[in-house]
Amino acid sequence: MKKILSILATSIMLSCATAQMHPTLIVADDDVADLKAAMGKYPLWDATLADLAAEADAVLASKADVPVPVDPAGGYTHEKHKANGQMLKKLGLQYQMSGDVKYAEYAKAVFLQYAAMYPILDVHPVDKSYARGKLFWQQLNEAVFLCDAIEGYDAIYATLSKKERKIIENDFLLKMADFLSVETPYVFNKIHNHGVWAAVAVGMTGMTLDNDELVARAFYGIDEKGKPMQADINGFGDSPYGFFTQTKELFSPDGYYTEGPYYQRYAMTPFLLFAQSINQNYPEMKVFDFEDRIFIKAVETLIDLTDAKNEFFPINDHLKGMGLGAPSMVWAMDFLYARTKNPQILDIAEKQGLRSISMGGMEIAKGLAQGKKETIAKQSKIITDGKEGKSGGLGLIRDEDLTTVFKFATHGLNHGHFDRLNMIHYHQGNEILSDYGAARFVNVKAKEGGRYLPENNSYAKQTIAHNTLVVNEQSQFGGEYKMAKEPHSQLIFADFEGDNIQILAAQDDKAYDHVMMKRVVAQITHKDYAQPILVDVFTVDALAESQFDLPYHFYGEIIDTHFDVNTATDELKPLGTAHGYEHLWRIADGKSNTGNAGFTWMQDRKFYSLTTVSNTETELIFTRTGANDPAFNLRSEPAFIIRQPKTKQYLFATVVECHGDNNPNTEIVSNQEKMTQKLGAERIGDLLLVHITSKLGSDIELLINLDHEKPTQEFELNGEKYVLNSNYKLITK
Amino acid sequence: MKKILSILATSIMLSCATAQMHPTLIVADDDVADLKAAMGKYPLWDATLADLAAEADAVLASKADVPVPVDPAGGYTHEKHKANGQMLKKLGLQYQMSGDVKYAEYAKAVFLQYAAMYPILDVHPVDKSYARGKLFWQQLNEAVFLCDAIEGYDAIYATLSKKERKIIENDFLLKMADFLSVETPYVFNKIHNHGVWAAVAVGMTGMTLDNDELVARAFYGIDEKGKPMQADINGFGDSPYGFFTQTKELFSPDGYYTEGPYYQRYAMTPFLLFAQSINQNYPEMKVFDFEDRIFIKAVETLIDLTDAKNEFFPINDHLKGMGLGAPSMVWAMDFLYARTKNPQILDIAEKQGLRSISMGGMEIAKGLAQGKKETIAKQSKIITDGKEGKSGGLGLIRDEDLTTVFKFATHGLNHGHFDRLNMIHYHQGNEILSDYGAARFVNVKAKEGGRYLPENNSYAKQTIAHNTLVVNEQSQFGGEYKMAKEPHSQLIFADFEGDNIQILAAQDDKAYDHVMMKRVVAQITHKDYAQPILVDVFTVDALAESQFDLPYHFYGEIIDTHFDVNTATDELKPLGTAHGYEHLWRIADGKSNTGNAGFTWMQDRKFYSLTTVSNTETELIFTRTGANDPAFNLRSEPAFIIRQPKTKQYLFATVVECHGDNNPNTEIVSNQEKMTQKLGAERIGDLLLVHITSKLGSDIELLINLDHEKPTQEFELNGEKYVLNSNYKLITK
Repeated sequence: MKKILSILATSIMLSCATAQMHPTLIVADDDVADLKAAMGKYPLWDATLADLAAEADAVLASKADVPVPVDPAGGYTHEKHKANGQMLKKLGLQYQMSGDVKYAEYAKAVFLQYAAMYPILDVHPVDKSYARGKLFWQQLNEAVFLCDAIEGYDAIYATLSKKERKIIENDFLLKMADFLSVETPYVFNKIHNHGVWAAVAVGMTGMTLDNDELVARAFYGIDEKGKPMQADINGFGDSPYGFFTQTKELFSPDGYYTEGPYYQRYAMTPFLLFAQSINQNYPEMKVFDFEDRIFIKAVETLIDLTDAKNEFFPINDHLKGMGLGAPSMVWAMDFLYARTKNPQILDIAEKQGLRSISMGGMEIAKGLAQGKKETIAKQSKIITDGKEGKSGGLGLIRDEDLTTVFKFATHGLNHGHFDRLNMIHYHQGNEILSDYGAARFVNVKAKEGGRYLPENNSYAKQTIAHNTLVVNEQSQFGGEYKMAKEPHSQLIFADFEGDNIQILAAQDDKAYDHVMMKRVVAQITHKDYAQPILVDVFTVDALAESQFDLPYHFYGEIIDTHFDVNTATDELKPLGTAHGYEHLWRIADGKSNTGNAGFTWMQDRKFYSLTTVSNTETELIFTRTGANDPAFNLRSEPAFIIRQPKTKQYLFATVVECHGDNNPNTEIVSNQEKMTQKLGAERIGDLLLVHITSKLGSDIELLINLDHEKPTQEFELNGEKYVLNSNYKLITK
Repeated sequence: MKKILSILATSIMLSCATAQMHPTLIVADDDVADLKAAMGKYPLWDATLADLAAEADAVLASKADVPVPVDPAGGYTHEKHKANGQMLKKLGLQYQMSGDVKYAEYAKAVFLQYAAMYPILDVHPVDKSYARGKLFWQQLNEAVFLCDAIEGYDAIYATLSKKERKIIENDFLLKMADFLSVETPYVFNKIHNHGVWAAVAVGMTGMTLDNDELVARAFYGIDEKGKPMQADINGFGDSPYGFFTQTKELFSPDGYYTEGPYYQRYAMTPFLLFAQSINQNYPEMKVFDFEDRIFIKAVETLIDLTDAKNEFFPINDHLKGMGLGAPSMVWAMDFLYARTKNPQILDIAEKQGLRSISMGGMEIAKGLAQGKKETIAKQSKIITDGKEGKSGGLGLIRDEDLTTVFKFATHGLNHGHFDRLNMIHYHQGNEILSDYGAARFVNVKAKEGGRYLPENNSYAKQTIAHNTLVVNEQSQFGGEYKMAKEPHSQLIFADFEGDNIQILAAQDDKAYDHVMMKRVVAQITHKDYAQPILVDVFTVDALAESQFDLPYHFYGEIIDTHFDVNTATDELKPLGTAHGYEHLWRIADGKSNTGNAGFTWMQDRKFYSLTTVSNTETELIFTRTGANDPAFNLRSEPAFIIRQPKTKQYLFATVVECHGDNNPNTEIVSNQEKMTQKLGAERIGDLLLVHITSKLGSDIELLINLDHEKPTQEFELNGEKYVLNSNYKLITK
């Protein structure tokens, strides 16, 4: 009913949301009855409400404290204010769910304490941020606090007297909103995570207090005088600042956040909170349709960016283990399910557990109780990078048990790694060709206070730490962020609908001066192989004679090497002196005169084999991280490096296959030998030809045209003339 | 009914089992009705029978083959005969369960083929065993084959004509039984795994064929003329050979098999098969009461020898991952449940899955269906070693989440490691202080055909690969098996019932000449610590000045070192040249002048800290396996070594604590710092005093008397006189 009134009112004059009802943000007044009616029906919803009640009751059993701010992150006053913000939200929600005014009264008392203290606070005494808060050492925390607190205020609004509202709003909420906007415009207008949190906090406060000025600030940003760039709330506007511009600039059209999923997971929350609040208060804006459903797509993209364990791919600075189990992802799934009712979301949600207090949360519990869950089936796709979607992207190739991640995106701001054309390969949720991720132990004090470690720069960000080409033992862009920031790689072609093949090709000619790199990655299904095989072709053309290193990082035990190997038995030395090479012990090396080299390893009791084309110049090197690591900051992990010394042009071709396993209880070892008998690769004119012969005698030939300008290629093979008029052709015999 | 008749008959004349009914071994004729009546009632039993039916039907759909034996293990004829034995058993059981004679007829045809071939076979052409079989390259496989085949024959016996029986028995079963006994007495009479399988195969054949001569051979062994050492079947006898003597000699009174659980798991099967068969055919012998319930105790001991994941402790040559999930352990649990009805066995069985076709198997399915399962609760205990139970043993200290394994046993025959007074420590099923296990990849052809690797001798068996003392960089007994075989360590005292303490002390003065080693291991519960702490005190008294190394092997990442450490940043060298030291890279070292040293590490996202007493002479060394390992046969694993150079007498004292964890999704890191502030240890006269001060200011004092000859000790502490008249005293303040 209220929504209809609201539509009628705002369709006449958008800037005047009359007859404000509360709550009006994430949980709206007309949701409350539905959320309460669901009690006793859906076990997960009951568990969620029981958890909320227990938390709120624990708050009531404790004494409130609103201390004068003095501590940095981790200290008492910091953690207390952080907890207070969350507590105000929970008390408000529990008041709405239970109808018991005791929760609202406790929250009111805390709000009044804040109102008594806040007006006399100066900026926080800890001077370590470019933007200090008042309650917190950095303004970011203040904005997050307000997002929580305003939800609580919204929920208890109806229980307050006019006088109480006046005190809390004038002395606290409005003061904090002003502090976060007009008093710190250099944060508020920023196209950055920090700016988004500030805009959202101010905007949600505006909606709750029926204050259009605050909403306009959030929507459109502020000018030099602190006035909204646009006064009327009449759509998404075209201001260079504000929430909508932040959204457009920070996400690609596919909903990809350029810093990668680890940061997107965190950055997502305010966008979704505000989108939900806007939809509640300005339904006529159809905010969920904004930028072709960008808020929805961003969450869907986050799901796409996970492995079979629902953990994020380690793009850029990424801490392993983080994934859809993160607390913020609960709310994201609730948001998404409310919008799409996609039954596959229930598969994720069931693993997450307790829901958020929201319509989506209740509906997920309902869907699960009604057995609507479907197994999540993630698809092969390309996710574009860049605000226009034209700055490269990520390619995801998926078969039932295998996933390949191919990165040809931008750098990812200052959390980016020097890893253009990097590739990561998964089998059943295990990283088979792995990426180190970030060198950091978040929140572990003994590891430099939990901050990024020196080895994050010296190793984890360097090119050699990734499965991509290193030229002359130097990282891409010389390891210089300022050089790497703008350029991006480019898609050449992709086809995920091929007959027994999914293939993707990309190129980069910016990472190294006067060097063109092209990589083709394909998953090919063939009857001789138990699993699809990964075919990886990497061409490099350099102006000057160079050394090319192509590393493959892996986990587990080396079972067999398919070439003569010399192991460094009684002395280890680092592989190099800089660009991450100084962190690699040179464990073993060798050469092959068979035209092929490679090895078989065992990870998690399954076997994997890599076969690569080699010539008599090719050096094959095994390494292990740990050199020049005085504080044990690096994990000890092996890698295999294919080194081609002194050449201008080279064609790397590699096949990786998953085969067999090893049961510790039955001691049955199945399918322990690789199937690839022989691997060849050659350039035929402008084309690439990869030839695989299996041990059962089958031939697999993959012909590739990487030349955009010559979509039709004529060529000779085995004395016969052919025409290729597509990007590639797979021939199996 | 048959059982009662049998008792009446045999109580008059034991050696005459009249009116033989079939089947009469593991599944007896009067069990069949019960097993069939259970169909449709218990899901796990239905699944088990469905699996049997599917396997038997698959056999019927394939063509039988009884090839002339030519291949060694892994080859076609070897694997085919092995599969045929199992197939005959399955067909027989499926005939009994279904009543459909087609299964019996297929089995009969195969038996007749064996009867046609077996009489003309010479010993197997592959000459690689001290005891060749006829169907197989080693006789062991022949005995295992017969154990399976005779169960099948027993099951189809009633379907055969007298003539068919005569052919199969005379030309095949009796010939094989004779071959396994009178024709190869040097195996048959052996007090060894191989002898046991032979005795059991011959004995089960005798019971099935109503042939007392064969049963007597199995029970009592044979003399030089091939006659049973005792002709009358009238009890367990006192022959130096035969099944009962094998049982007494190979198990300790606690049911421990001296080679350790990995081998006990395999060796168990024939003992249980035969015990069950004896009980069926000679119930008056009360075989399950033999040697104070030795068969039952042996299975219970195997359960005790597992961690929280139900995997065996890595005692002696052990392949990690093996545990109660092994196929032979299904039958062992079915056997045990039938005897004891212990509802905790259901907890194990549920994780195992499908059951054996036996009363126990059915009863487990029934118990699970009836919800009788109880969580398994393994207890602290001592498991004695040696046939008299007087050759040391294993100590198991368990708290809710922690387990410490302390080995003071015999060597464990030629699968033993040089690890007297070794200690392994678990937290929630993870090895925190670890043992390498065996260096072997069973059945992995590329790793020396799946056999034990050279590094098993050069590293895994050596003392330095274990968490126990190494004197002068030499393994115990100089690494000589013949020196190590007989001596054993000794328990000093144990108490698992202490107030907030479980404690165990043992000593060894044989492992090194003129060196007395004593170790005390305790788990102490104290309010300042989230988990009980491990206190490890190791004293050594040597005649000559020596270097003492006490290694602690661990997994995971080093988070912090509590002393100044010098890391080998640009060159690694092996720690030594022999006795396993040549396989350890010296990663880092340091000294401490605070009286304490140690480090914190993270394994599986949980924190652990080790604090040890040190003086200014103490060298603290971090190592990693992998040196002198040309074929990558060793896993790369870290260790921390406390080295005390040049002294005659030393007292090592160490505390290991589990504290806190690190959640990758919430990034909340709890309790990341160790609680131990200060650790002291001293000798006060003949006593040891360990003193722990926690960061919260608590004092924990542990006073220990290791002198058997002075059970009452007077001593002075802080100027006051005390009397200790027990083995230890724990004082907490």
